[in-house]
Amino acid sequence: MTRVFNFSAGPATLPESVLLQAQAEMLDWNGVGASIVEISHRSADFIAVAAEAEADLRTLIGIPENYAVLFLSGGATTQQALLALNFAAPGQTVDYVVTGHWGKTAIKQVAPYAKVNIAADGEPEGFRSIPARDGWKLTPDAAYVHITANETIHGVEFRPVDGKGAAPDVGSVPLFADFSSSIASEPIDVSKYGVIYAGAQKNLGPVGVAVVIIRRDLLERSGQPRADIFDYRSHAARDSMLNTPPTWNWYLAGLVFKWMLAQGGVAEFARRNALKSKLVYDAIDASGGFYRNEVVPQARSRMNIPYFLPDETLTARFVAESKAAGLLALKGHKAVGGLRASLYNALPVEAAQALVGFMHDFQKRNG
Amino acid sequence: MTRVFNFSAGPATLPESVLLQAQAEMLDWNGVGASIVEISHRSADFIAVAAEAEADLRTLIGIPENYAVLFLSGGATTQQALLALNFAAPGQTVDYVVTGHWGKTAIKQVAPYAKVNIAADGEPEGFRSIPARDGWKLTPDAAYVHITANETIHGVEFRPVDGKGAAPDVGSVPLFADFSSSIASEPIDVSKYGVIYAGAQKNLGPVGVAVVIIRRDLLERSGQPRADIFDYRSHAARDSMLNTPPTWNWYLAGLVFKWMLAQGGVAEFARRNALKSKLVYDAIDASGGFYRNEVVPQARSRMNIPYFLPDETLTARFVAESKAAGLLALKGHKAVGGLRASLYNALPVEAAQALVGFMHDFQKRNG
Repeated sequence: MTRVFNFSAGPATLPESVLLQAQAEMLDWNGVGASIVEISHRSADFIAVAAEAEADLRTLIGIPENYAVLFLSGGATTQQALLALNFAAPGQTVDYVVTGHWGKTAIKQVAPYAKVNIAADGEPEGFRSIPARDGWKLTPDAAYVHITANETIHGVEFRPVDGKGAAPDVGSVPLFADFSSSIASEPIDVSKYGVIYAGAQKNLGPVGVAVVIIRRDLLERSGQPRADIFDYRSHAARDSMLNTPPTWNWYLAGLVFKWMLAQGGVAEFARRNALKSKLVYDAIDASGGFYRNEVVPQARSRMNIPYFLPDETLTARFVAESKAAGLLALKGHKAVGGLRASLYNALPVEAAQALVGFMHDFQKRNG
Repeated sequence: MTRVFNFSAGPATLPESVLLQAQAEMLDWNGVGASIVEISHRSADFIAVAAEAEADLRTLIGIPENYAVLFLSGGATTQQALLALNFAAPGQTVDYVVTGHWGKTAIKQVAPYAKVNIAADGEPEGFRSIPARDGWKLTPDAAYVHITANETIHGVEFRPVDGKGAAPDVGSVPLFADFSSSIASEPIDVSKYGVIYAGAQKNLGPVGVAVVIIRRDLLERSGQPRADIFDYRSHAARDSMLNTPPTWNWYLAGLVFKWMLAQGGVAEFARRNALKSKLVYDAIDASGGFYRNEVVPQARSRMNIPYFLPDETLTARFVAESKAAGLLALKGHKAVGGLRASLYNALPVEAAQALVGFMHDFQKRNG
């Protein structure tokens, strides 16, 4: 068996040691004579796994005690609808800062439930930057301000500005952030956010489970009429076991958390992610325009690097030849075309080095 | 490694051959150099897996072409809320026939969105039977009539009556059924239903994915305002890939479908399930009252058999000793206590035989 370097934007590469453990335990987990995917979520065995995953995630990210942590089925999109249902009164204004594709789709989920104010929009400038904070048109009594911490398709990420953290200052209105493609990739100050949510399938592990981190006082908001299964309070009160949770996915995420802690935690992944993305951006910038990334340097994503070749023929050749060279999933998202390298936590530095080597070689042969 | 006989009510036992295949493919699926949990849901590789799972499920259950089949994240509870959002006009009456715990919780999800009429309720008689059809108080212009085909906790199942199928006749109003714990356990006439939905984790495979089978004309109903992610039409139009689906869970379900087809399909599982449940009910009925099941014979579930010993001490001893004997998860649900044996498709006949042997022995020693 040969494992490739997998640059998939999500579902994405997992640590080999985690897959090996899941493989070893597939028919008999922890000596119980059954797989963990076959046992009750209400069993003491699974409850211990679930609680340990939460504790490890709290340690990993540094989640304060006054935040609830939920593990829910479905991905980030479902949470985008639930945010409005749980935290906005019917018809209340919610402020959205749109910096790419996912910020736009978030609005689609919210529109039936709240009055959406687009406080800032990067689209007129082609989603190449984060609109300057002083131009944002925020609503004083908005239910919340929503940002997308990293845009997976457009490769635009909120980065630290003027020596301060990456979280924009939005005053007393709670800041909600879709962290699907950058959670746990560097230290974050959770206390700056009201809600942080993320599908797990990029930086945290497997597809099929989402993590939602909620400042507990927000759970006291009445929100609007909704089914019990759409109520974060009910999920929080039942430790995310209001109904049958995606147990195997939760377990696998827990294995990834342990791996991340053993590797040195988010500080170490911040170092690796900065290194990997610098390698690729440097290769792009040193290519004399053969490779192009169009995002302004101060908003370039460390996680997803969309880039372009001079024409479609070269792009198709790059995708085919890189795949043959053991570099998987470098084709860009259909919304923007070109190429994309996703460099999540579980992607080793060696993968970025291999990609850069391939890029040099490809340019030599085709430039 | 010793695999036990696993009587869990869900998540539940899986075919060993399926687990072995998933184990073998864990680090390298189909020679791509990555696990299937690591590749994009938009890749041709995964789309083929997804389409094959749908085609196999259609063959297995006999789903007509005029029904859409969705594979969605979350379990049955989420669907219970979505049914009203998609198929009932705001405030329209929906009829619910309550035959156990899950019928009751279904109403909780629907209450914010529709006017619930409890057309029949088995609770006054302790959920020991299906209320006779001629006593149901149906609403002529209801959006739908909802039943729970099998109640996992109370062990009450809709069974064929008077030589006709198990689906009650509700006239022209569409019949919606929660089939979570009995789907694909025997042949069903899908055309009698408007919607059939089921969490996969009992008879269809792994936890973390739900199957929703919808008569296509119902998708033309406007329902009520809802987020795009809550709209069955959007999921149907995008082949259940509106957002990132639980790919690994979907893949594992597909392996279970192939296993079921290879074993002889639902006709064969109907035979095995009838045999397994007869073995256990006969042992209960022949015990002279040492073991008790309280459901009337014509509504006894083939899937879940709740039963009782004379006292709590014996119950605790039975649970502990059966576990030590390699018979897992026989403790009853906390809502009713006692014992429960769940006998889903993947539980072999040998497991029911072993349970009956243990029951005889336990009675001899304690009766």
